Amino acid sequence: MFDIALVGCGGMMPLPNRYLSSLLLRFEGRMVLIDCGEGTQVSAKQVGWGFKTIDCICLTHFHADHVAGLPGLLLSIGHSGRDEPLTIVGPVGVAHIVRSLCVIAPEIPFPLNFVEIPAGGMKDFKIPLTNFILGAHPAHHNCPCFAFRIDIGRLGKFDPDAARALNIPVNFWGKLQKGETLEHNGQILTPDMVMSAPRRGLSVSYCTDSRPPRGLPAFIQNSDLFVCEGHYGDEERLPKARAYKHMIFSEAAELARKGGVGELWLTHFSPAMPNPGDYLKNARKIFQNTHIGHDRKTTTLNFQED
Amino acid sequence: MFDIALVGCGGMMPLPNRYLSSLLLRFEGRMVLIDCGEGTQVSAKQVGWGFKTIDCICLTHFHADHVAGLPGLLLSIGHSGRDEPLTIVGPVGVAHIVRSLCVIAPEIPFPLNFVEIPAGGMKDFKIPLTNFILGAHPAHHNCPCFAFRIDIGRLGKFDPDAARALNIPVNFWGKLQKGETLEHNGQILTPDMVMSAPRRGLSVSYCTDSRPPRGLPAFIQNSDLFVCEGHYGDEERLPKARAYKHMIFSEAAELARKGGVGELWLTHFSPAMPNPGDYLKNARKIFQNTHIGHDRKTTTLNFQED
Repeated sequence: MFDIALVGCGGMMPLPNRYLSSLLLRFEGRMVLIDCGEGTQVSAKQVGWGFKTIDCICLTHFHADHVAGLPGLLLSIGHSGRDEPLTIVGPVGVAHIVRSLCVIAPEIPFPLNFVEIPAGGMKDFKIPLTNFILGAHPAHHNCPCFAFRIDIGRLGKFDPDAARALNIPVNFWGKLQKGETLEHNGQILTPDMVMSAPRRGLSVSYCTDSRPPRGLPAFIQNSDLFVCEGHYGDEERLPKARAYKHMIFSEAAELARKGGVGELWLTHFSPAMPNPGDYLKNARKIFQNTHIGHDRKTTTLNFQED
Repeated sequence: MFDIALVGCGGMMPLPNRYLSSLLLRFEGRMVLIDCGEGTQVSAKQVGWGFKTIDCICLTHFHADHVAGLPGLLLSIGHSGRDEPLTIVGPVGVAHIVRSLCVIAPEIPFPLNFVEIPAGGMKDFKIPLTNFILGAHPAHHNCPCFAFRIDIGRLGKFDPDAARALNIPVNFWGKLQKGETLEHNGQILTPDMVMSAPRRGLSVSYCTDSRPPRGLPAFIQNSDLFVCEGHYGDEERLPKARAYKHMIFSEAAELARKGGVGELWLTHFSPAMPNPGDYLKNARKIFQNTHIGHDRKTTTLNFQED
């Protein structure tokens, strides 16, 4: 089970009824958080998954509404008893930014490791302590900014008939299923002898604070869930979206359509838009399976049946 | 009218139903904020007094729960259209701390002026753009920390009979009332010729994150309102309060009693204390006019009748 919670859905500043955009992902008890604005820890507390196993925080960019909550969250993770290292991924300079913010949190009781995303993005970064595979793709904002994709891979299916035909002892089966290569009676046994090709995994993509980025549909291709900013709902706000490097609902929907994703959640709403649902139709006429995000909107993705 | 709003009343970390301790004071449309933890701007927005005329932010100390909300608040003050300088008062190092936090808010559109409080405290600091007079007194925490006192002075009463007896023209009266010294027909006219002694002003004191500070009762003497931490309500938590350099309700009440204040509000409650009202009696048996703070608890102080 791959659990996803939209911790907040606001942009620019936190509001009494809307926390700032942030996404929490959980698989096998380990968690990754994308962005951490002021108040993210409060809404995350209400999500109720705890703080201790947040193994990685991915920062799209360094604007305050995406990072100002970091020192408080890191302290709260510390209070949860964590002592394992925590990885923070972000644009070049991430260590400097986080260390500057943490001038008021000198006593974080676990190591921080920093991963800088090269300007061109990155792919296939295995997040330590988790089974999440992270990719980053350049967004198009007024500062270095990235879209993220998080994949959970799934091995192929074990074929016991093949294993028996090859006279592989039953006590070897489990190790082969886990991907190990073994030797038995002088014979090299590899997983592919008894496993089908890897099966379809699960994938979530995330893009905020951007004009529609070049190449994004390929980057998010076939994601089960695409969480994307719809800073404005009204088509007439397109000039403003262009000026401030944001997207309107229909642009997010167009990305979802081209990317062939399963579902689109809109987020990062302008404080000037109290009722994003008023504009949902502008997205749905392009991509039907669009949903308006709200604080702590949650879903669970499951592997397909074999 | 001197308006006071307890923006939040929590300590250590923001909670879904309790913002971090912070106090907003307003007089003649100008405001001073004491402390700014994560989320302070959200609760302050609900207070509804706007952001533009926050002329000064006083920081008791540099722990995250008292300062992490600064970059977000400063940006929101900027969005409100402010271009006048804003003064930030805090312990030595305040400029470095604020500048470090504002690494994510480089575009604040108004000047920041910093005032460092000497280790011994300070008194009679006239806050620019306001009629607030600020004092700071050393607290007793595990880092440099200060209690604050904010006074609003009040001139004496004008005596028209005295002015007539001295043949002072009526068009001079207003200037004398405002404290100006004038010359008329070779005679020096001073305010004291027509004004009584200064009348009683208004005063609010604030102390969080401290053991009972030496000398505090004299510092807060006769304040109309004393806002003080009661980190724990239970008398049995006294050893813990001593260890973490906090106060229990009865200690705050003892300070209020010795200081001869008008009213005590308790604040900065431990996250482990969901119902501070359960312990109110521990304070009231020492100082009757004690009240449990809550987010956005508000009052207005008025000058006494002449």
